[in-house]
Amino acid sequence: MDNNTIKLSSNTVGKPIQCRAAIARVPGEPLVIEEILVDPPSSHEVRIRIICTSLCHSDLTMWKMKDFPGVFPRILGHEAIGMVESVGEGVNEVAEGDIVIPCLMPDCRECVDCRSTKSNLCSIFPFKISPWMIRPETSRFKDLKGETIHHFLFVSSFSEYTVVDIVNLVKIDPEIPPNRACLLSCGVSTGVGAAWRTANVEAGSTVAIFGLGAIGLAVAEGARLCGATRIIGVDMIPEKFEIGKKFGVTDFVNSKSCGDKSASQIINEMTDGGADYCFECVGFASVVHEAYACCRKGWGKTIVLGVDKPDSQLSLNSLDFLHSGKTLIASPFGGLKAKSDIPDLLKRYMDKELQLDEFVTHELGFEEINKAFDLLMEGKCLRCVIWMDK
Amino acid sequence: MDNNTIKLSSNTVGKPIQCRAAIARVPGEPLVIEEILVDPPSSHEVRIRIICTSLCHSDLTMWKMKDFPGVFPRILGHEAIGMVESVGEGVNEVAEGDIVIPCLMPDCRECVDCRSTKSNLCSIFPFKISPWMIRPETSRFKDLKGETIHHFLFVSSFSEYTVVDIVNLVKIDPEIPPNRACLLSCGVSTGVGAAWRTANVEAGSTVAIFGLGAIGLAVAEGARLCGATRIIGVDMIPEKFEIGKKFGVTDFVNSKSCGDKSASQIINEMTDGGADYCFECVGFASVVHEAYACCRKGWGKTIVLGVDKPDSQLSLNSLDFLHSGKTLIASPFGGLKAKSDIPDLLKRYMDKELQLDEFVTHELGFEEINKAFDLLMEGKCLRCVIWMDK
Ligand SMILES: [Zn+2]
Ligand SMILES: [Zn+2]
Ligand SMILES: [Zn+2]
Ligand SMILES: [Zn+2]
Repeated sequence: MDNNTIKLSSNTVGKPIQCRAAIARVPGEPLVIEEILVDPPSSHEVRIRIICTSLCHSDLTMWKMKDFPGVFPRILGHEAIGMVESVGEGVNEVAEGDIVIPCLMPDCRECVDCRSTKSNLCSIFPFKISPWMIRPETSRFKDLKGETIHHFLFVSSFSEYTVVDIVNLVKIDPEIPPNRACLLSCGVSTGVGAAWRTANVEAGSTVAIFGLGAIGLAVAEGARLCGATRIIGVDMIPEKFEIGKKFGVTDFVNSKSCGDKSASQIINEMTDGGADYCFECVGFASVVHEAYACCRKGWGKTIVLGVDKPDSQLSLNSLDFLHSGKTLIASPFGGLKAKSDIPDLLKRYMDKELQLDEFVTHELGFEEINKAFDLLMEGKCLRCVIWMDK
Repeated sequence: MDNNTIKLSSNTVGKPIQCRAAIARVPGEPLVIEEILVDPPSSHEVRIRIICTSLCHSDLTMWKMKDFPGVFPRILGHEAIGMVESVGEGVNEVAEGDIVIPCLMPDCRECVDCRSTKSNLCSIFPFKISPWMIRPETSRFKDLKGETIHHFLFVSSFSEYTVVDIVNLVKIDPEIPPNRACLLSCGVSTGVGAAWRTANVEAGSTVAIFGLGAIGLAVAEGARLCGATRIIGVDMIPEKFEIGKKFGVTDFVNSKSCGDKSASQIINEMTDGGADYCFECVGFASVVHEAYACCRKGWGKTIVLGVDKPDSQLSLNSLDFLHSGKTLIASPFGGLKAKSDIPDLLKRYMDKELQLDEFVTHELGFEEINKAFDLLMEGKCLRCVIWMDK
């Protein structure tokens, strides 16, 4: 903590901060960088200065969504890292100057779920897609005309300053490069966790991953760390195989050129009966069905990570399911507990076990944030990190 | 093995045996006890003299089923115990005079699945509802007019003699009372195994069981053995609670008198958020949905045991599933491996750990077999054991 930080904090503690934020005002239209006012943190809340933020597909989804839970104006962004500017009443876990990662997945450390090793779904503060803070359902943002601006996933990191509840904040080692650490807020953690915590992939096993975006590649990375010997990636874009190799993907199935077969049929043939673990990272119920169809009878596990539309149904034939001996597992946030598992994964990065560098394909300044949206939409980037001060 | 047995075998080895069988000739109409001819065992097959057989709901289902896999004439029955009369070529595992249990679930002990601790679904001889022997798809039965009679579940125990493939046969300790041992052929094993092997119920946990027939009660018994502290039984018949108490059921939900609530809502309230394990033992996709709805978010497991109609679909909302952190597991034959787990369970019975006596509510002679069908249909019995020589 340098003097500058202390001075900054002293000047702003307890007062609204005026700063720049990229605001989604109209569904699907470019974000507008405006001056806004960020309220001081209420009790159990922390105001942080964002250092870096990256873009995740959920930002895109919610940016385009015209109806609830799509709301406007809103500050999107939920993968980030920042420095604590000030803390609200009752916050002892972090102090000004601490380096923190906001996380959409609450971890209160007190409820039966947060204390259990089996769950990562806080019961006091259930995860939901809300336009507000998690505790009092209110906003800490307004524009200079006084209009309320909504939150996103309890983070809203496309702003120089944001306010996050302490249950959504993880203190981390300040030595970790911020343009790597921010990845652990959401996508990369979810993928690595799904392989590592939810599936607990056995060494020597075969894994199939549907969708080689950042989450799917993070599943590959997690499976590689667990000692999987064969990692089959499924995607429509052949270039993904080259990227995938960096994360341990050994085989590639192009789901667009399977001829008259389905990807699941091809995988069943390749593996002589199916993969031990199949991960759905696309977010389509139909892809869950494909993943399920090529996980090994008798012991295969299909792990669901992808978010589909609210009315989408997973549908399995009842008798087939019973006779399959298969398991279907939901993996919200990769089964990770934010406050213990994110620091653990970061330590593995510092120990050169976990690869994070390869996920960052682009870095931009805050002013170029709309370009980051374009890159993600074009499928040209895994993660684009935005530096707030550039 | 007494002299009488040896003599009997010597007289019949290699020849057809004429004996009595209860034949299902017309869907839903009483079985007819007739003289039939039972061929000698082909290679890898064993001809056994049935000592006891019990009735399971699958017998009822297939007895009523007009279309395939319902076929007629057929010898039903698949829970049984018998003595080996003679063995076909290549059979070394059992010899004449051995006491054996036939089991619908093949266990070849050689394929990758049978050698794996993770699977109980033989890949060389996949389980299916077939009207034939498992290896050559032929019958060993004909009536005295020469008409072929079909098999059921590779067992067909409603006959004084039957032929079973060695992969469907388990040698057991001859000291075990036959009217108890026969229960392990199917229903009771499935239920106990689902709790013990598939779910691996943790000590201290809460279990909900949908359907308190023999399988559901066997789940309770398995959960009790695993140390579950709360076992909630759900059934439409209130008397089931009294029976259930004998198997460790601690709480009862009458699914017919839940008022304007569903059984799952009541269980969610009783357990403050759901049971750790929910077992579906009825065989309705809708009941799987109920079971899933009251298993604990974050770690709850729903175990599917019941057989529904061939076209029935399990349907879960994709987003709800992802955010639930729940697991859906198929438990064919309770995840048990016939040749190792049935003898293990029988040993536990002899050691007075596992309760079997309470499952047998009725015992009848072979001539009264149609009465056993009536009792099961009326819901008046858990298991009716039929003694072939009475
Ligand atoms: Zn909590
Ligand atoms: Zn995300
Ligand atoms: Zn086998
Ligand atoms: Zn049965």
